[in-house]
Amino acid sequence: MAPGKKGILERLNAGEVVIGDGGFVFALEKRGYVKAGPWTPEATVTHPEAVRQLHREFLRAGANVMQTFTFYASDDKLENRGQSLRLSGAQINEAGCDLAREVASEGDALVAGGVCQTPSYLSCKSETEVKAVFKKQMEVFVKKGVDFMIAEYFEHVEEAEWAVQVLKTSGKPVAASLCIGPEGDMHGVSPGECAVRLVKAGAQIIGVNCHFDPMTCVKAVKLMKEGVEKAGLKAHYMVQPLAFHTPDCNCQGFIDLPEFPFGLEPRILTRWDMHQYAREAYKAGIRFIGGCCGFEPYHIRAVAEELAPERGITPPGSEKHGMWGAGLEMHTKPWVRARARRDYWENLKPASGRPLCPSMSSPDGWGVTKGHSELMQQKEATSQDQLKQLFDRSKSH
Amino acid sequence: MAPGKKGILERLNAGEVVIGDGGFVFALEKRGYVKAGPWTPEATVTHPEAVRQLHREFLRAGANVMQTFTFYASDDKLENRGQSLRLSGAQINEAGCDLAREVASEGDALVAGGVCQTPSYLSCKSETEVKAVFKKQMEVFVKKGVDFMIAEYFEHVEEAEWAVQVLKTSGKPVAASLCIGPEGDMHGVSPGECAVRLVKAGAQIIGVNCHFDPMTCVKAVKLMKEGVEKAGLKAHYMVQPLAFHTPDCNCQGFIDLPEFPFGLEPRILTRWDMHQYAREAYKAGIRFIGGCCGFEPYHIRAVAEELAPERGITPPGSEKHGMWGAGLEMHTKPWVRARARRDYWENLKPASGRPLCPSMSSPDGWGVTKGHSELMQQKEATSQDQLKQLFDRSKSH
Amino acid sequence: MAPGKKGILERLNAGEVVIGDGGFVFALEKRGYVKAGPWTPEATVTHPEAVRQLHREFLRAGANVMQTFTFYASDDKLENRGQSLRLSGAQINEAGCDLAREVASEGDALVAGGVCQTPSYLSCKSETEVKAVFKKQMEVFVKKGVDFMIAEYFEHVEEAEWAVQVLKTSGKPVAASLCIGPEGDMHGVSPGECAVRLVKAGAQIIGVNCHFDPMTCVKAVKLMKEGVEKAGLKAHYMVQPLAFHTPDCNCQGFIDLPEFPFGLEPRILTRWDMHQYAREAYKAGIRFIGGCCGFEPYHIRAVAEELAPERGITPPGSEKHGMWGAGLEMHTKPWVRARARRDYWENLKPASGRPLCPSMSSPDGWGVTKGHSELMQQKEATSQDQLKQLFDRSKSH
Amino acid sequence: MAPGKKGILERLNAGEVVIGDGGFVFALEKRGYVKAGPWTPEATVTHPEAVRQLHREFLRAGANVMQTFTFYASDDKLENRGQSLRLSGAQINEAGCDLAREVASEGDALVAGGVCQTPSYLSCKSETEVKAVFKKQMEVFVKKGVDFMIAEYFEHVEEAEWAVQVLKTSGKPVAASLCIGPEGDMHGVSPGECAVRLVKAGAQIIGVNCHFDPMTCVKAVKLMKEGVEKAGLKAHYMVQPLAFHTPDCNCQGFIDLPEFPFGLEPRILTRWDMHQYAREAYKAGIRFIGGCCGFEPYHIRAVAEELAPERGITPPGSEKHGMWGAGLEMHTKPWVRARARRDYWENLKPASGRPLCPSMSSPDGWGVTKGHSELMQQKEATSQDQLKQLFDRSKSH
Repeated sequence: MAPGKKGILERLNAGEVVIGDGGFVFALEKRGYVKAGPWTPEATVTHPEAVRQLHREFLRAGANVMQTFTFYASDDKLENRGQSLRLSGAQINEAGCDLAREVASEGDALVAGGVCQTPSYLSCKSETEVKAVFKKQMEVFVKKGVDFMIAEYFEHVEEAEWAVQVLKTSGKPVAASLCIGPEGDMHGVSPGECAVRLVKAGAQIIGVNCHFDPMTCVKAVKLMKEGVEKAGLKAHYMVQPLAFHTPDCNCQGFIDLPEFPFGLEPRILTRWDMHQYAREAYKAGIRFIGGCCGFEPYHIRAVAEELAPERGITPPGSEKHGMWGAGLEMHTKPWVRARARRDYWENLKPASGRPLCPSMSSPDGWGVTKGHSELMQQKEATSQDQLKQLFDRSKSH
Repeated sequence: MAPGKKGILERLNAGEVVIGDGGFVFALEKRGYVKAGPWTPEATVTHPEAVRQLHREFLRAGANVMQTFTFYASDDKLENRGQSLRLSGAQINEAGCDLAREVASEGDALVAGGVCQTPSYLSCKSETEVKAVFKKQMEVFVKKGVDFMIAEYFEHVEEAEWAVQVLKTSGKPVAASLCIGPEGDMHGVSPGECAVRLVKAGAQIIGVNCHFDPMTCVKAVKLMKEGVEKAGLKAHYMVQPLAFHTPDCNCQGFIDLPEFPFGLEPRILTRWDMHQYAREAYKAGIRFIGGCCGFEPYHIRAVAEELAPERGITPPGSEKHGMWGAGLEMHTKPWVRARARRDYWENLKPASGRPLCPSMSSPDGWGVTKGHSELMQQKEATSQDQLKQLFDRSKSH
Repeated sequence: MAPGKKGILERLNAGEVVIGDGGFVFALEKRGYVKAGPWTPEATVTHPEAVRQLHREFLRAGANVMQTFTFYASDDKLENRGQSLRLSGAQINEAGCDLAREVASEGDALVAGGVCQTPSYLSCKSETEVKAVFKKQMEVFVKKGVDFMIAEYFEHVEEAEWAVQVLKTSGKPVAASLCIGPEGDMHGVSPGECAVRLVKAGAQIIGVNCHFDPMTCVKAVKLMKEGVEKAGLKAHYMVQPLAFHTPDCNCQGFIDLPEFPFGLEPRILTRWDMHQYAREAYKAGIRFIGGCCGFEPYHIRAVAEELAPERGITPPGSEKHGMWGAGLEMHTKPWVRARARRDYWENLKPASGRPLCPSMSSPDGWGVTKGHSELMQQKEATSQDQLKQLFDRSKSH
Repeated sequence: MAPGKKGILERLNAGEVVIGDGGFVFALEKRGYVKAGPWTPEATVTHPEAVRQLHREFLRAGANVMQTFTFYASDDKLENRGQSLRLSGAQINEAGCDLAREVASEGDALVAGGVCQTPSYLSCKSETEVKAVFKKQMEVFVKKGVDFMIAEYFEHVEEAEWAVQVLKTSGKPVAASLCIGPEGDMHGVSPGECAVRLVKAGAQIIGVNCHFDPMTCVKAVKLMKEGVEKAGLKAHYMVQPLAFHTPDCNCQGFIDLPEFPFGLEPRILTRWDMHQYAREAYKAGIRFIGGCCGFEPYHIRAVAEELAPERGITPPGSEKHGMWGAGLEMHTKPWVRARARRDYWENLKPASGRPLCPSMSSPDGWGVTKGHSELMQQKEATSQDQLKQLFDRSKSH
């Protein structure tokens, strides 16, 4: 860690708000450096300037955490997804660490090494095999001297526990974040119970990321917090939700929405939605507040601006942003100038400009969408096998 | 111009499709480098890495034109908007040229020097004064050796004519693009008549940009083309629309929508909307096809992918993009894999996830929104004065 | 006519507002007495109590005109639609006259005998044959002593002219109403030209009914009025629109909307929408203001209430209706009491309660709806033949 | 009871489906005979022909129960609502019985005498006083020989218990129906517990009516059924929901929606929605299936048609209705003919035609609607007092 910087636990123990960064996978897909489907991060090696620039934008937006862009960078995933560049997992992970550190050094940010769920677990490999995958990524993080670890995007709490157990051996602080909503993980383990298990596995910071919109994620973290407190335990809490409105999700989150991943635009949150999110997360006692898929730099900036009074700082990027639309004060049209006020934007109900589209969808997987029956049958066959295996495994523990 | 590259007119005369770039002002606002309200481009000097990166992303997405990021960089605008960094217009414009040229050299792209409407015109300064403003920017473009000129974002055809007359003195090809819809310019001059006037002023390429959604812009350019052909003239055609759905606009475009500029998210076009746009523009005989506010690199990539058969090339960025969702073929869930096909995405009606929001808004300025009467009165007073002056001026010519 | 009542022309010549009645076909379909598809009015004979009751409700709502329920009661239509009850057209038409007269006598209303477009015309029978059909209905109306005649629901102005020419022979005042919008009739004859032709054919009152929502119909009548005035002619104007919002119609009106006729519920106008309609119609100089399909008694009451100041009377039914929600003043909940005011209801944007549904549809017949291509081909084949015949006919006149 | 007719319990015990009627209050408001706000049924005396006609339409639609139109006809309500016609409660109730019996005799229907919640209870009068109010209405029903009793539209299960206890003294079968959703009554008593209490009070048929849409009501009745079965008790089940979609209701139902009661049109269910409702209710084991506010005769007909296979009869009104749109088979336009099939209507997502309107609203009473703070404060003050009194009362029992 750079000298003079406070560590993640120091900050949280002191009651500070830590701002996370946003979603690299989706942002870089739109910028042309990540392929939707595989979603792997080989751009850390092939296009470092693009990854570096995105880190910088989040730093400028107020982020205090630079997560290494190492999502889906476990060896088993890289192989499985046909990453064909003859790059090793170690190369990709190392490059990711270097870029995060380079930009973190330009401001008040820490570097977090990130791991996420693995194909090994989903294909029912043994605990030893799965843990070996995490260990390999961790060793890079240790070698590169990250400040702390984040195990994130786990649909099954059991795999997250394994990840935490591995990451704990580094001696660094460990955060653990599931991609679940208020209904719990894919085995039906409630958020409260998931939370207790993660704390017992050794995580100091727990929460949720991805899969659901901000309000749903905050609700899930609240349930985690209740579970932890009821069990007489202690933890810090984090949340890094989608920047998409998903009131119509089922328990599997936005993956099952028909718009995933190429038709989500109408669901993108405005900066004003982000103000509400930041406030709700803060009120819920969450102090590590960031974003996942869909979060662009201006979304993180809105989070930082909403919590500026509590934090006593505005992000560097606010030099290019008037609070609550203040930049419109000099517009030539008076009715646009009239929008330069907080209550205008807080009360706006933005139109979609899409009169032929609905406001909600039926998720695939509910089986309610008529005319898709064949697809549903195929789906059920496949997922039932898969789920059965996972279920059997869960019972054996 | 780099040796071996064909100029803009050579390309268009040969019947090639030229892909434009996307919207710098909005994209860099979201990335933290442009302030909404002033919208000025001093980032060319203060944050060149951010501007360069965006150029690169558009190049990678398939753009053949790197427009200098010199929007609202005329001296009168910079002064008017309170740009306080003691940077001269010349510095900002020169830096914009250098960045565009640097990236253009990395691929098959030309550099276009861009000017746009001025506060001088809107405050009713003389033709001589307004032309002097354009001349100053043009001199930088000539010195820096841009490949051609674009006069864009003009609400009044008269000012665009003046700009064209100035830019013509450079000896470079000149494109002229109004921010109007099918109803014509702010004096009510029809698109057809605007087009004829621009061609007579010397523009070789004419069209529209900004203010309206793609289909509306294509419609406006069609009307321009009809006007030019009826007058027995000839021109090439360009279109660079918004990446926002605006079926509810009045003649002033998206500025008057209540969502402008901070609540436009639900209106953002998907990549599939862009396929339709590119096809429509091509069918209308338009051969310079790009984007304006809201266009991100993946939007330009979609335009380039739709027209790949006609152009015989896919953009470099397509290495990270499966056509029509093909990247989903390896997804673990069969019902997500089932989305890896063209007709799925072509027929999707994406939900907004916003059940409390409407699908259209009433533009400010229609006077129909009840409860805003005071605002409307103020607006009318102001705009009537302003419009009267402009109207009087228009009659005097 | 009952002694002491002023005739329709006397009223209109005196500048009075005449309130029409609402839509019998749709209202009685919902009540169980008319079959959707055939839409024929044999209920005048089989269930007179149901028809009488609906007449009474419209009278009570303020209607000054009782139209005989003789829609689609021409002999050719009754035969064509398989009306199987062995009732003659004469029986049905006579019963319709008796019911209308019985109720008209209970208040300040006139009886109007109504004819509408015929299968004979659409199957390209001769002028003589078509006129014979109208003549047969007219003879019943004359025998039964109706107060005036209405030729309504004509898609082709030519057939309406023929109807007017026949009805004029009765010596009674004649009103003529087309089911067209601002784009004109099915041969593309503009509303202005349609209007002139109807006046020249002898109609004293002209306008439009059915097929479009109130604002669209008012717009069409305005165009008719402009045409008549431009031609130096004179007429009275009438409008009897749908009670459904149809912003998404093509020129064929609501028939082509996918919701026709069994899914139109979300489009039903509120009583407050009717206030706006009545005001707009009045402002446009229309003085015979009623309704067609979808208009229930409370819709007509709202028209009468809006124009109560101009007319100096409130309808009898207003004894059971508080103006602008006044009846809520005694509600037990204060937030419901707070709705007892005009601006609350004028500004309400009522939700559909249907988040999976869009706000607009693509009409069949535009050819834009993907996946219906087969249907479209079939449709085009059929309608092109039909339209060609009609077109050929129109040219021969 | 007419000789030869089976009683309500005989029917239900035999497993028959009993079809209820629809909503008199709302239907007669639209027809001009009931005033919104007071909602009192003096029309039984003043306009018997209108009430009779509506009974007939429901009978024709398939209803087996003619509920006396005696809603809000208790003496305390009539006085409270300012019914000024000097009609006594007895007169109104007697006339209601006569009309229901007259029409029931025309078909296979029973007469049910109906009582509902009283101002006496809501203003915290004593059990004795409240019961006296019910007793007075019951005495009319006994004198007039109704076939059974329905205590309906109770927000507080306690008051419903009192009503049941009174009605039981008649010796007639008693049905009890609360206007609650899945969250239970206004004191937070769960549907399951409410159900048990009603059965213990002596009701043979229990369920819910009004306040929520069909699917929500069916869900609430399912919870009641679970409660009864868990308690080892037995009952028959009934449901008579709104004909409005209310996915956005809070626990107080549609009263709190901003559209209540004059802007509910876009929420009206189609006949196809009713098919789904009838099927769901049947599957849930409910055998008395009818409707409340918003149900028009064609809605009841759709219920009867959906359950025609189970019941072995189609309603008389189906002579004027083709199943699943079959009546369109003879339409002149082929694309309208193509709508004459079940899957077309089952899959239709009907548009609202209202692009400026949302698909859901925020209920008043949630306190989330900005800008209404004053109203909310007033509301809270009032309702807290009221609720406190009720709460105190509930504790004392």
